[in-house]
Amino acid sequence: MDVGLVQQLATDEMICMAARVSTIGRNALDRDEEKDQGLISFLLRDRHGSPFEHGSFTFRISAPIFVVREFMRHRAGMSYNEESGRYRELEPVFYVPAGERPLVQVGKAGQYDFKPGTFEQWFVASESTRTAYATAWESYQNMLAAGVAREVARSVLPVGIFSTFYVTCNPRSLMHFLSLRTKSDDAKYKSFPQVEIQMVADQMEEHFKRLMPTTHEAFVKHGRVAP
Amino acid sequence: MDVGLVQQLATDEMICMAARVSTIGRNALDRDEEKDQGLISFLLRDRHGSPFEHGSFTFRISAPIFVVREFMRHRAGMSYNEESGRYRELEPVFYVPAGERPLVQVGKAGQYDFKPGTFEQWFVASESTRTAYATAWESYQNMLAAGVAREVARSVLPVGIFSTFYVTCNPRSLMHFLSLRTKSDDAKYKSFPQVEIQMVADQMEEHFKRLMPTTHEAFVKHGRVAP
Amino acid sequence: MDVGLVQQLATDEMICMAARVSTIGRNALDRDEEKDQGLISFLLRDRHGSPFEHGSFTFRISAPIFVVREFMRHRAGMSYNEESGRYRELEPVFYVPAGERPLVQVGKAGQYDFKPGTFEQWFVASESTRTAYATAWESYQNMLAAGVAREVARSVLPVGIFSTFYVTCNPRSLMHFLSLRTKSDDAKYKSFPQVEIQMVADQMEEHFKRLMPTTHEAFVKHGRVAP
Amino acid sequence: MDVGLVQQLATDEMICMAARVSTIGRNALDRDEEKDQGLISFLLRDRHGSPFEHGSFTFRISAPIFVVREFMRHRAGMSYNEESGRYRELEPVFYVPAGERPLVQVGKAGQYDFKPGTFEQWFVASESTRTAYATAWESYQNMLAAGVAREVARSVLPVGIFSTFYVTCNPRSLMHFLSLRTKSDDAKYKSFPQVEIQMVADQMEEHFKRLMPTTHEAFVKHGRVAP
Repeated sequence: MDVGLVQQLATDEMICMAARVSTIGRNALDRDEEKDQGLISFLLRDRHGSPFEHGSFTFRISAPIFVVREFMRHRAGMSYNEESGRYRELEPVFYVPAGERPLVQVGKAGQYDFKPGTFEQWFVASESTRTAYATAWESYQNMLAAGVAREVARSVLPVGIFSTFYVTCNPRSLMHFLSLRTKSDDAKYKSFPQVEIQMVADQMEEHFKRLMPTTHEAFVKHGRVAP
Repeated sequence: MDVGLVQQLATDEMICMAARVSTIGRNALDRDEEKDQGLISFLLRDRHGSPFEHGSFTFRISAPIFVVREFMRHRAGMSYNEESGRYRELEPVFYVPAGERPLVQVGKAGQYDFKPGTFEQWFVASESTRTAYATAWESYQNMLAAGVAREVARSVLPVGIFSTFYVTCNPRSLMHFLSLRTKSDDAKYKSFPQVEIQMVADQMEEHFKRLMPTTHEAFVKHGRVAP
Repeated sequence: MDVGLVQQLATDEMICMAARVSTIGRNALDRDEEKDQGLISFLLRDRHGSPFEHGSFTFRISAPIFVVREFMRHRAGMSYNEESGRYRELEPVFYVPAGERPLVQVGKAGQYDFKPGTFEQWFVASESTRTAYATAWESYQNMLAAGVAREVARSVLPVGIFSTFYVTCNPRSLMHFLSLRTKSDDAKYKSFPQVEIQMVADQMEEHFKRLMPTTHEAFVKHGRVAP
Repeated sequence: MDVGLVQQLATDEMICMAARVSTIGRNALDRDEEKDQGLISFLLRDRHGSPFEHGSFTFRISAPIFVVREFMRHRAGMSYNEESGRYRELEPVFYVPAGERPLVQVGKAGQYDFKPGTFEQWFVASESTRTAYATAWESYQNMLAAGVAREVARSVLPVGIFSTFYVTCNPRSLMHFLSLRTKSDDAKYKSFPQVEIQMVADQMEEHFKRLMPTTHEAFVKHGRVAP
């Protein structure tokens, strides 16, 4: 998973400035970092979400299509552009689970827990995956070589192939994404994201934490719930 | 492609009623079908889009994942629920292009045109597709049989496998979808949708035309542009 | 405040049907009311929000402009059409607080509490309001009589004048609205809506409760938080 | 009308970078300003709207409430925070039309044209407006002095009073706003915005033009239609 921050305009200060227009109007204001902390914590605690929309993060992300599909289910405050399988030939980069990836799911739908696979399971997963990927890629190449259109040939490509996309979000929609796609014991609501999208979300959270430390701290403190 | 209309609340009357609140306010009004036609045509011509949001269509659609992916890029006024590859074992239903599907693309990105494939191209496409699908399915089954989690095993499944989803939209978001995912000589703006999503969109348009004949007529008359 | 339900397509069944596509896919299913209750409760508890978007309520609401302004800050999943002060002459219907309306606010911004006014306060409020409304209306009428455009003349009209609008929302956006614009001891998060928008929200909730009893019950049970 | 640009992250380059992920994927690319012009023009012409969402403008705007109300009807890609009449005492700043403001409307609803008022009309408008504003303000002050809550007292305030708000939008939602709230002979679709919101929109367009000259040029060239 590759997550790069391409551009950003995201500060704790802007959140406070937007929130204070409610109570101060057009007047100038002296900033006071301590008061900012209290204000941001209050806003997140009492679900005043709108001030957290005045900011912008643009990420470039490379991830397998099954991750991209989960990601793009997030609509509000999210903007996307993705590599096209109609306009270009995709590259042969495929997702193979690392050795430590838990392979066995236990529990019931919506609340799965995971435990490590046996060596044999890991071996089957590894071999089956490689075989399927290789055959898919060969079929794709054969069709392209015969002059078949990319948009037709692509139907054999697996959802484990990598795709690249840009996503722009704001601090509020980012927190909403993180609340559902990360996993934490501190979270007020349980979430069960797939490990692979967690790997993307965790990298996004690092950027968020670095750029908006006060907002991130309040987000964690109040149970990782988006306002 | 399977497109079923599950429920709907979509009438030309409601559009007119909503539009007339601008000029009539809370007062009761006698309907007059002829005036409705003029009003709807005026609204669409001059891009008064908001009245067209007071309605609802829910479709259940089965289509290959590459079509679902294009579909779900539509965010505004669209609500989705889709079959989950984490929560259930998918079924072995795969997309194979019909004999008449044009296989060769000419022209440049964003403006592709298509022409029929030769017999040899059709043969290569057909064989390559079948081989890749069969291998992918076998790999998937092997992993499941070994106890590997569905969410891991699914990464080998091709984007040509069928998935099922519900989508709810309103007349405005439906027209926006149709303006981009159908192809027509009457359209004011050229669009280049992939044939497979056109097959879905055309079926949706039939329902739209039947339920909201006046709105559909005005949509066509004004160049198939969403207001 | 006048709240009328104009059309609706909102059932607990549709929510379950949409949710079950995740786990059952395209297969037919026998309904089982008891299981529906458990499913809806689970969805709301664990914030699976998307199934609650497959439905539609259209209300016609008459309320003072200051209420309309608060209402229309809700954007996601909300569609509006409102009476126009440019296209029509507004009617002289103004909001006057009833005798029991608490007039005095105590506490700090964002957490106001209210207590009843004294007789003198009620008298001042009543007289001042009437004077201001009467003068505003007279000025408006004078301008219209002189041939001044409605869009210019309207600038004197108070935010206490009534306006009428249509709003269409889905069960999810309705719950989000109710979670912020009603007040309840059962609520997990405190909210401080103005009394006048509560009067609108409470009427909307009655319709919601009647049409979707299972969803409403789960909404209350899980702390009146929108998923 | 006061329109200030508070922060921005808006470049023609980012639009091109996002668009090119479709055809180039993750690969690095050399920029070429001439090609950027062609690409942006193509995107706008053929309604490829999504690349225009990767950017952000935050404005602080002071305008009369009747303008704010029209503004906030724009929902998609728009984020707001506004001065609160519940949390603070508003300031006595009111909108009075300048001498050159056309006062008389001719034509029919949705297509109004305007012509100058006579001296008498201007006099009536001016006097009526001042009287109404003065009475409203006095009533408001009387109530506040008596200890009546701000949220109750505000109902007498006219929609001509100024309010201040922050709005954050992206290049796409900004173009959509401009296409409806400015007036131009070059526009493909006729629009009939009220003069006062045009005054706001024109200032916003100046910032847009300065920061994203290539996108703005293409927007004008293709008839001022948002993609």
